[in-house]
Amino acid sequence: AVRLRVREALGARETAEAVRVQGWVRSVRSQKEVLFLHINDGSSLESLQVVADPSLEKRDLTFGSAVEVQGKLVKSPHRMQNMELQAETIRVVGPCDIWSFPLKMKERHPLEYVRQFPHLRCRNNTLGALLRIRSEATAGIHSFFQDNGYVHIHTPVITANDCEGAGELFQVEVKAKDSVEKTHFFNVPAFLTVSGQLHLEVMAGAFTHVFTFGPTFRAENSQSRRHLAEFYMVEAELSFTENLQDIMQVMEDLFKTVTSTVLSKCPRDVELFHKYIAPAQKVMHVTGKNCYFSSSCRISYSEAVEILKQAPQTFTFKPEWGCDLQTEHEKYLVKHCGEVPVFVVNYPYDLKPFYMRDNEDGPQHTVAAVDLLVPGIGELCGGSLREERLPFLESRLQRLGLTDTYQWYLDLRKFGSVPHGGFGMGFERYLQYILGVDNIKDVIPFPRFSHSCLL
Amino acid sequence: AVRLRVREALGARETAEAVRVQGWVRSVRSQKEVLFLHINDGSSLESLQVVADPSLEKRDLTFGSAVEVQGKLVKSPHRMQNMELQAETIRVVGPCDIWSFPLKMKERHPLEYVRQFPHLRCRNNTLGALLRIRSEATAGIHSFFQDNGYVHIHTPVITANDCEGAGELFQVEVKAKDSVEKTHFFNVPAFLTVSGQLHLEVMAGAFTHVFTFGPTFRAENSQSRRHLAEFYMVEAELSFTENLQDIMQVMEDLFKTVTSTVLSKCPRDVELFHKYIAPAQKVMHVTGKNCYFSSSCRISYSEAVEILKQAPQTFTFKPEWGCDLQTEHEKYLVKHCGEVPVFVVNYPYDLKPFYMRDNEDGPQHTVAAVDLLVPGIGELCGGSLREERLPFLESRLQRLGLTDTYQWYLDLRKFGSVPHGGFGMGFERYLQYILGVDNIKDVIPFPRFSHSCLL
Repeated sequence: AVRLRVREALGARETAEAVRVQGWVRSVRSQKEVLFLHINDGSSLESLQVVADPSLEKRDLTFGSAVEVQGKLVKSPHRMQNMELQAETIRVVGPCDIWSFPLKMKERHPLEYVRQFPHLRCRNNTLGALLRIRSEATAGIHSFFQDNGYVHIHTPVITANDCEGAGELFQVEVKAKDSVEKTHFFNVPAFLTVSGQLHLEVMAGAFTHVFTFGPTFRAENSQSRRHLAEFYMVEAELSFTENLQDIMQVMEDLFKTVTSTVLSKCPRDVELFHKYIAPAQKVMHVTGKNCYFSSSCRISYSEAVEILKQAPQTFTFKPEWGCDLQTEHEKYLVKHCGEVPVFVVNYPYDLKPFYMRDNEDGPQHTVAAVDLLVPGIGELCGGSLREERLPFLESRLQRLGLTDTYQWYLDLRKFGSVPHGGFGMGFERYLQYILGVDNIKDVIPFPRFSHSCLL
Repeated sequence: AVRLRVREALGARETAEAVRVQGWVRSVRSQKEVLFLHINDGSSLESLQVVADPSLEKRDLTFGSAVEVQGKLVKSPHRMQNMELQAETIRVVGPCDIWSFPLKMKERHPLEYVRQFPHLRCRNNTLGALLRIRSEATAGIHSFFQDNGYVHIHTPVITANDCEGAGELFQVEVKAKDSVEKTHFFNVPAFLTVSGQLHLEVMAGAFTHVFTFGPTFRAENSQSRRHLAEFYMVEAELSFTENLQDIMQVMEDLFKTVTSTVLSKCPRDVELFHKYIAPAQKVMHVTGKNCYFSSSCRISYSEAVEILKQAPQTFTFKPEWGCDLQTEHEKYLVKHCGEVPVFVVNYPYDLKPFYMRDNEDGPQHTVAAVDLLVPGIGELCGGSLREERLPFLESRLQRLGLTDTYQWYLDLRKFGSVPHGGFGMGFERYLQYILGVDNIKDVIPFPRFSHSCLL
């Protein structure tokens, strides 16, 4: 018998004798004259309908059990499906104790419910769809950059950099066998990376286009629906770039290309989210390919503050030039611009890290930074031009007392320095945005956050 | 002027007016009547030759400086190159202090030398070639699995599992602000992953084909040329698989497909390694596409021990059924089989972790495990069938006192368990093998090992 995946069986153009399908039972419906099964193997959201003689029914042929079915693949008489399998044999490979199995047949379990079972929730329709989408989006990100001539770099997870100021850090040490041992494994304190940017900048001194896509870490004590202790970030760095506009263009192109890949590769999976998960106002933005970015808005930080000051509503944090934009501010700006993605550029010099490029303006002194805010999420991407001018960088690091620590970074400006810039996009936030998922814990296979590291 | 990358300029079919090329100077040769430059931008190993009037020479137009050249792209009169650029203007974007720059013009620096400069070594020809190859291999791995219907899973870096017995673990904790704080960020001790296998097995309960490709960690106090504290592993898991042969087939297909991608995408980069880096006996194995696996050998562990016992040489570790194969043993086995990849299957039950499938044989009790040994490297891949039978797994975990810890893992066998198996391949060892690189530190952008975590 020819082994077919469910997706292949469903998409078959011809009937076929002697087909073998393996998977898990998603439903059993026993009638007097006929037994109906639905078999899913993760290759698609849709299950394959199996039609069998009632004599093939067994006690352990239940929801959740693993089965192997052999039979004929024939055109289905039903309008909603192309093919179905007429079973000749059904073998239960692995039974499922349905009384203790936390997932129930044909129930649409809430995401909060399945989150309690990290080792079983992938067997739920919604999480299954999410994981297929996540996989396609991952492939789409790699393809986008490769097609555009970027070199992929594995930036390190463990790093000795500890002063980028991006929130709390996780420290790494050898598991203490005896607590006497106090020396560092790496001789120096080592941390989990918060960004691959500085390492990408190293590479941007030899390759004009580089990117990385890997795990990053924040030890923030937050239970927010937008934060995880371990999350994925796409980061890119471009050399010979003198303009923030070029960086924004790559953000937009990346977003559009990956989204269009996802929509074309798993339309049914995306549809499930838009139909049952996303709030109505989010689905509004979704009308076809590339729709998510059909229009966008670009304002400066200073303009943003003016808009906020003139807002008819009062904020918990009073908007003031020189202060960080809060979530409430970001939300208002997105609404003000008509619920479209908003690029905010040129942030106050004193708010931003040392590596951002001085705009040399005044009296409101800014750097060439850009944040991309999107409806329902807030910050999706952050980027900047980097300070490529040795004297600017030297004096800023000196004032911060970081000259020694970043001697290697200054070196990059001494040997063939070029104007360059880049950005990072939070991968989970991207998925939350396109799918309309409220809680970030539901778009990653194994969420890690304060007080929780299951499995 | 049209901006072209060096690779595009070199591959152009037509001459072109008003072309702009940006990159770093790899050589300057000033003659009475003409100035020659070579410009590299990382898009290829080959640099673009620029021909200019000597009047365009400037003091800061040196090796290592960043430049922008505008001019005409014309057919080169030289046999070795297709096109060259006749410069009209040359702008030095970023000068290079050649006296303190550790790389020198036209010198073939040894890998040990450039390893001292982790922030600059990517500007060296050999490391540049390595990073392009690594990038293509990464893309090739993603494509191989996607083309074969695998779902990509981001298995977690931080995990609470600590007892797989795969060597020393790194522990993760919040950087102590004050040493009074003693509670765990995740409530439980947390570690850096040594393998994504158990998490992939979770997913193999909903998807028949899954893979992961990410960083893994070992806190081994080793300065070996084959070990790193942070390295990359490709791992795959296949459901409804009852045969080690199927696992071995995927290993082989993965190897062949990715290698053939690399050879076709960056032949010149690979050639550089085979010409200048790899020892002669390694290049011997390289004669064309898919050559690395043109033949392979398959023996059982028990056969391997017999071969070793009959070997005319003496080993430091005496070969004995029930003991681990040592590096010296692996080396001998590969030689014995004719310097081809060797699959060793069915290892002693007591040597292997709890999750491997019991072969129920005897008196030499084995599990369905497989290691792939390759010339010059030793173990490249390791895999096994997993114990899918609840009673076998329960009794083994009970004997180990791990029943409570792995309750979730036992659950996977209660709800639709299926025969399954998988493997992992060390990505850096793969690169070492196909390129003939002796030291693993030279095939990763930022090596981390005991006593060293630079940048």
